[in-house]
Amino acid sequence: MKIKKDYLLAPGPTPVPPQVASAGAWPLIHHRTPQFRAIIKEVADGLKYLFQTKEPVYFMSASGTGMMEAAVANLMSPGETMIVAEGGKFGERWSEIGKAFGCNVVITKVEYGKAITPKQIEETLQKNPKARAVFTQLSETSTGCVYDVEAIGKVVSKTDALFVVDGISGLGAEPCYPDKWNIDCLLTGSQKGVMLPPGLGFITVSTKGWKKVEEAKCPRFYFDLRAYKKSLEQDDAPWTPAISLLFQLHEALKLIKSETMEGMWSRHAWLAEATRAGMKGLNLELFAERPGNILTSVKTPSGLDGEKIVQIMRDDLGVSIAGGQGSMKGNVLRIAHLGYMDRFDITTALSALEFALKRQGHAVKLGSSVAAAEEILWKDPK
Amino acid sequence: MKIKKDYLLAPGPTPVPPQVASAGAWPLIHHRTPQFRAIIKEVADGLKYLFQTKEPVYFMSASGTGMMEAAVANLMSPGETMIVAEGGKFGERWSEIGKAFGCNVVITKVEYGKAITPKQIEETLQKNPKARAVFTQLSETSTGCVYDVEAIGKVVSKTDALFVVDGISGLGAEPCYPDKWNIDCLLTGSQKGVMLPPGLGFITVSTKGWKKVEEAKCPRFYFDLRAYKKSLEQDDAPWTPAISLLFQLHEALKLIKSETMEGMWSRHAWLAEATRAGMKGLNLELFAERPGNILTSVKTPSGLDGEKIVQIMRDDLGVSIAGGQGSMKGNVLRIAHLGYMDRFDITTALSALEFALKRQGHAVKLGSSVAAAEEILWKDPK
Repeated sequence: MKIKKDYLLAPGPTPVPPQVASAGAWPLIHHRTPQFRAIIKEVADGLKYLFQTKEPVYFMSASGTGMMEAAVANLMSPGETMIVAEGGKFGERWSEIGKAFGCNVVITKVEYGKAITPKQIEETLQKNPKARAVFTQLSETSTGCVYDVEAIGKVVSKTDALFVVDGISGLGAEPCYPDKWNIDCLLTGSQKGVMLPPGLGFITVSTKGWKKVEEAKCPRFYFDLRAYKKSLEQDDAPWTPAISLLFQLHEALKLIKSETMEGMWSRHAWLAEATRAGMKGLNLELFAERPGNILTSVKTPSGLDGEKIVQIMRDDLGVSIAGGQGSMKGNVLRIAHLGYMDRFDITTALSALEFALKRQGHAVKLGSSVAAAEEILWKDPK
Repeated sequence: MKIKKDYLLAPGPTPVPPQVASAGAWPLIHHRTPQFRAIIKEVADGLKYLFQTKEPVYFMSASGTGMMEAAVANLMSPGETMIVAEGGKFGERWSEIGKAFGCNVVITKVEYGKAITPKQIEETLQKNPKARAVFTQLSETSTGCVYDVEAIGKVVSKTDALFVVDGISGLGAEPCYPDKWNIDCLLTGSQKGVMLPPGLGFITVSTKGWKKVEEAKCPRFYFDLRAYKKSLEQDDAPWTPAISLLFQLHEALKLIKSETMEGMWSRHAWLAEATRAGMKGLNLELFAERPGNILTSVKTPSGLDGEKIVQIMRDDLGVSIAGGQGSMKGNVLRIAHLGYMDRFDITTALSALEFALKRQGHAVKLGSSVAAAEEILWKDPK
């Protein structure tokens, strides 16, 4: 049988750079040692740079959903009102967590693919003056829509409410300045822009947020930020940390520092622009109202099944992209350009998409999307 | 500077076999694919074998403490009574988690190093007839004491209470039969007998336990066993799983199956017997009343600082063992023989201990502990 090479272009997990991957196989060292504390110290510095914040950033052994629970459990008390911006599956997850913890969840909704507006948040805050926090995404991974978090932050900062942003798919690809943008809690996972395998989560809280952490009444232990704070002050972790993933994080943060955050953002913007150009070359319609640097979502051409396209690309051509989730299933294709990605990942993804569409009988002019993308990719990012 | 080889003989993290380590560097594949579901299916079978249970075993991205929280949050409601057997730091952790979740924690205590008796549990259950569950350890890692979980299970099974066992350091090294021994919830972490890096936890619940999971009122989302059950029935995980650690688990379970559980237990018993013989050869006094197959704890010889011994062994000789935790700090030395360990790991640890004691001015006859251990180790395990 013919050798098949595999390419990962889904919005998480994303490809891991070889020097980061190999650190996952390093011999373990014990975590309660000066040797490991030196690594934690450097990782903590690197995470502050990644998050562009002066506040400490905590790492936990958990997926991104664990970080979302950490945000709710540490910032809310049962019965308190939380406003959730729901524009996709991950907005909905905020609501589910809030309900599980007995919060009064007020949902402000937009259609899948559309962006939550600052105006919408402002009106919801006015109707719910006792709301303790507003929960949103930087990028709603399920639709590919990026929210104007800076503008929403301005609106929230005029109230007593806290502003909580799930940056799980966005951080590293989209500019985000929590300290300047009035974000009180920002979190992400490891398997997206940070270029690691899944299994680690990261979270930071503003001074305003910390006051609430001390008072919040939701029960919590594993995700209790107070335990992480006390430990990190001694370059330590409260529970046995995921040592091999931390070795990998240590390596990934070196790469991030060397490219710089500005460099990462402009590389992602360039890859996104090329992908959108490629989609235009194929006459595919963008799905997201505010498409971002993370992934490009398009509507499946009518008469075709998006799930089948994803399957052909993955099983026959070796290129993993994502389809739609929930009610978007079959109707949306999502190609990520997130993390350890360069120009030929985009041409590969677009070629594979052309092939899958053609194999399904769709009228495709071979090379049309690649040629359109190449108009962007032959030069370096700005 | 002289090359220094490092040896990990602490009770977690434990050494990772090379074929398991290298799987930590494998290219990631997407988790929502038939390819990854095939791995989950095999891992789920392997975990049932590891746990010696017919019930499904769930894997989560978290440390062992996360699994302890999962047990409390899924099996208790706020205000309900839980009995905790406290014989060390990890017994105390059960109490802390119970308190964080608003349970009425009834503590039955024994001195550090002693074993909780079935009689003690029986009396505490009689005094607290409304107790919903009894929480204990299979092995209290902080003291090296193994509890008679089979006998305790018999006592608990005469009541309506559930029996919850933290097998974090014990599973794989000590025989444990949850189905036969009336254990309603058994859990462990990845970095002990399972021979993986830390970052994964495993948990199983009996039919009796599941009735309580459905009714329990503690808030939970990330650790909600109902979500894991629903997913695992489709060879899936509810949140993005720690893919690289699951690749490693897949490899480790192959090794475990090949050695068999009976083989693992007898190897650990053999290594433990040799280590105890070595300690006797050095005239060191065992600390634990019921020393197990996991680790051997001894009292630091009078006049010496245990922390200093640990430091010399680690920093000067390259051999990581553990000292005492909390009030045991400085007074206890703990050498683990857990996970990926063979005879020469024991002779190495004992040599290093001889050297560190001698370097601290203790009267040591060089070779005395190694010779004593060799009397056990020259033959194969029974």
